[in-house]
Order: sequence, then C-alpha cells, then structure tokens
Amino acid sequence: MVIKYPNGKSYSPQKKTLEKVKNKDYTYSNRGKTLEDEINESNEYYLQQGRAVIHKKPVPIQVVKVEYPSRSAAVIKEAYYRTASTTDFNGVWQGVHIDFEAKETQNKTSFPLKNIHAHQIDHMMKVIEQKGVTFLIVRFSSINRYFLYPFQPLKIAWDLMIRNGRKSIPLEEFEKQGFEITPSAFPRIDYLKTVTKMLAQESV
Amino acid sequence: MVIKYPNGKSYSPQKKTLEKVKNKDYTYSNRGKTLEDEINESNEYYLQQGRAVIHKKPVPIQVVKVEYPSRSAAVIKEAYYRTASTTDFNGVWQGVHIDFEAKETQNKTSFPLKNIHAHQIDHMMKVIEQKGVTFLIVRFSSINRYFLYPFQPLKIAWDLMIRNGRKSIPLEEFEKQGFEITPSAFPRIDYLKTVTKMLAQESV
Repeated sequence: MVIKYPNGKSYSPQKKTLEKVKNKDYTYSNRGKTLEDEINESNEYYLQQGRAVIHKKPVPIQVVKVEYPSRSAAVIKEAYYRTASTTDFNGVWQGVHIDFEAKETQNKTSFPLKNIHAHQIDHMMKVIEQKGVTFLIVRFSSINRYFLYPFQPLKIAWDLMIRNGRKSIPLEEFEKQGFEITPSAFPRIDYLKTVTKMLAQESV
Repeated sequence: MVIKYPNGKSYSPQKKTLEKVKNKDYTYSNRGKTLEDEINESNEYYLQQGRAVIHKKPVPIQVVKVEYPSRSAAVIKEAYYRTASTTDFNGVWQGVHIDFEAKETQNKTSFPLKNIHAHQIDHMMKVIEQKGVTFLIVRFSSINRYFLYPFQPLKIAWDLMIRNGRKSIPLEEFEKQGFEITPSAFPRIDYLKTVTKMLAQESV
C-alpha cells in the first residue's frame, strides 16, 4: 500500500504498527516486520522502475523431515529457523553492489545493538573490503523516524560494546552520523536516494 | 573436501555422485546438489582468501504452522517449498556484483532448458541492466565437465525455445560460446578465474 500526502502532513503508521503488534504475537523474531514490508515495497518499486535489483534473502530454515503425499507438493513436517550469517537485503544498483540490514526498535532514544549479530558485522566488513556498499537502516517506530546508518560508525559502536562499552547507539548519533530518510510517496522508503547522499559525502 | 592431483590425472567424482544419488532419493529438487556443494566450498575459499563475498541464498520456504514448545526453539510443523524468484548465488567481487545460477545435468550431449525458470531469465536480464555480471554454471556430471555460460547466448537459446525452438543447449554450444572450468585443487571450481576470462573477451 502506498500512502499519499494530499495535505502535506507526515504520515504516521504507528496505529497500524500497534495493531499488527497486537494481532501478530509480537515476539523478538517478528520485530522489524513492518519496516521489512516497507523496504520490500520500495524494492519492488525500484525493480519496476528499472532503478535497482535488490531483494530480501529468504529466511534460512533447516529442514529435518519432509513428506511426499501422492499427487501433491512436498510438505515440510519438521524444520527449524537458523541464524542468518549475512545481512537481509542485497542486490545491484547501477553497477554498485548494495548489501544492508534493516531493523526497527520501539526505543525512543537509542538503538540496542543486540539487534545485530557479530557475524553480520563481520559480513559487512568483508563487503566493504570487496568495494560493496553496506549500511544499516533503522526505524525508530515510536517516533516514526528512519535513518540510514553507515557501516563505519556502526563498527565503532560495535567495537566499543565488545570492550564493555555502551550497548546501544543513541538517537543523537543517528542524527549526527546517520542520514535521515524522510518517507515519501513513491517509493515510501527511498533509501537509494539516501545512499547517493552518503556516497557523495564520503567522496568529499 | 578438497582433492589434490599428485599424478596430474583428472579427478572423477562420478562414483561419489552416484552414491549420493542412491542414498539421497534423487528427486528433481535434489538435482544439482553436488555441484552446489562444490560451489559452496569454492565460495568459502574465496571468503577466507578475501577474494570475494559470494553466498548461496537460502531456499525459500513458506511457513504455515509453527509451534513453540516451552524452553526450546520454535518448531516449524508445516511448510512448503516455494519457487525461487531469483538466482541461487550472488555477492560482490572486487567491486563487481556477481549473480549466477548453478545446474548439473546427467545428459551427455546437451543441457535441458527446463532446469531454468522464466523468472530467473527475467532476473538475470535485470541484473545485466544494472551492470551486474550474471551467468550460468553447468556441470555435465556424466562426462565430468564444467562450463560457465554467459547470459547472452543463454538468452538467445531461451528465446528460441519460447518460439517452439530447441528445448536444450547442445554441448557444442557450451564448447563454442561458453568457458570451460577445469577443476583444480584450491578452490575446486575456480569460477571467478573463468569470469575474468569472460570479461576480458567481452571487453575486446
């Protein structure tokens, strides 16, 4: 669903989010669901417009037992979620390899680093080494603000945490070192526009 | 497992493949499994050597029913395999976005195009438009030969098939328009070396 702004006011998806939360048994694994939908829609838009080919990777699942009922599709009867070893989204945008993770938090003042896994940081570092572009998209759901956060400050915050430092990134850091994404109509989360900004600043 | 060549002779993995086939209920969905393992090992090698960050995407699975036994991990009790909408492997290699599909066939003289899906061709075309590098890796298992096949001739063969043309690509076409991958020790399937050859020829 794409939202228009006939009155120029900011759209607040908070109510929908809370409804979803209530109905959907808001467990840890479900966190970030709504942001994921928004990014999937943006990616679909980019694809249709020929701007980029970026997809969410399927959730890794370890299949243990499969049954083959005659004349119908195989049915998985026992399986388990595995931890992703990479980021959730990747693809190509005008010759640039794009690779990112998207997370949302209900926190109003900081982003808890427990939302990120060590092997994801490791993966992102390797992507940088291969001259890919990697970053984090964070949605502060309670205050309805989105940020693209470059890998470099994320890595610094991560390394500090490892050495018993702060376990979260304050909102002010997002305002200072990140790039705010203002939701728009088409696509809702135009993060590639924000990546352009980020790359322009890096090359200064 | 990595195979060495002390006597310079070609290694034939055929016996192992047949054993796997027998033990593993060699259904359609299992086809390509051994080639997949080989490519996963090569990707692991590239990763360790800092040469590239390329991964297989998880198989897309539609989860229908999940149970949450107390004190243990969530168990998926009903789920179905979905058709992949993209290719199996992607990643970044020294600034280049890499995106490919890997298939093996028991055929000795041609590669049946039914191994590829229409939406995969569509995806590969979009990757090319975004200046990514995309191709097919085919293993002719019975004769133990591997080829990297560029997207352009694959697309031509595909379009011919659509217009009631030939439903497979002859081995001679692979020899003529493809790039043979000679298995080596580390990594076994050094397909990035072959990609370098392909790109060098394209730029001539």
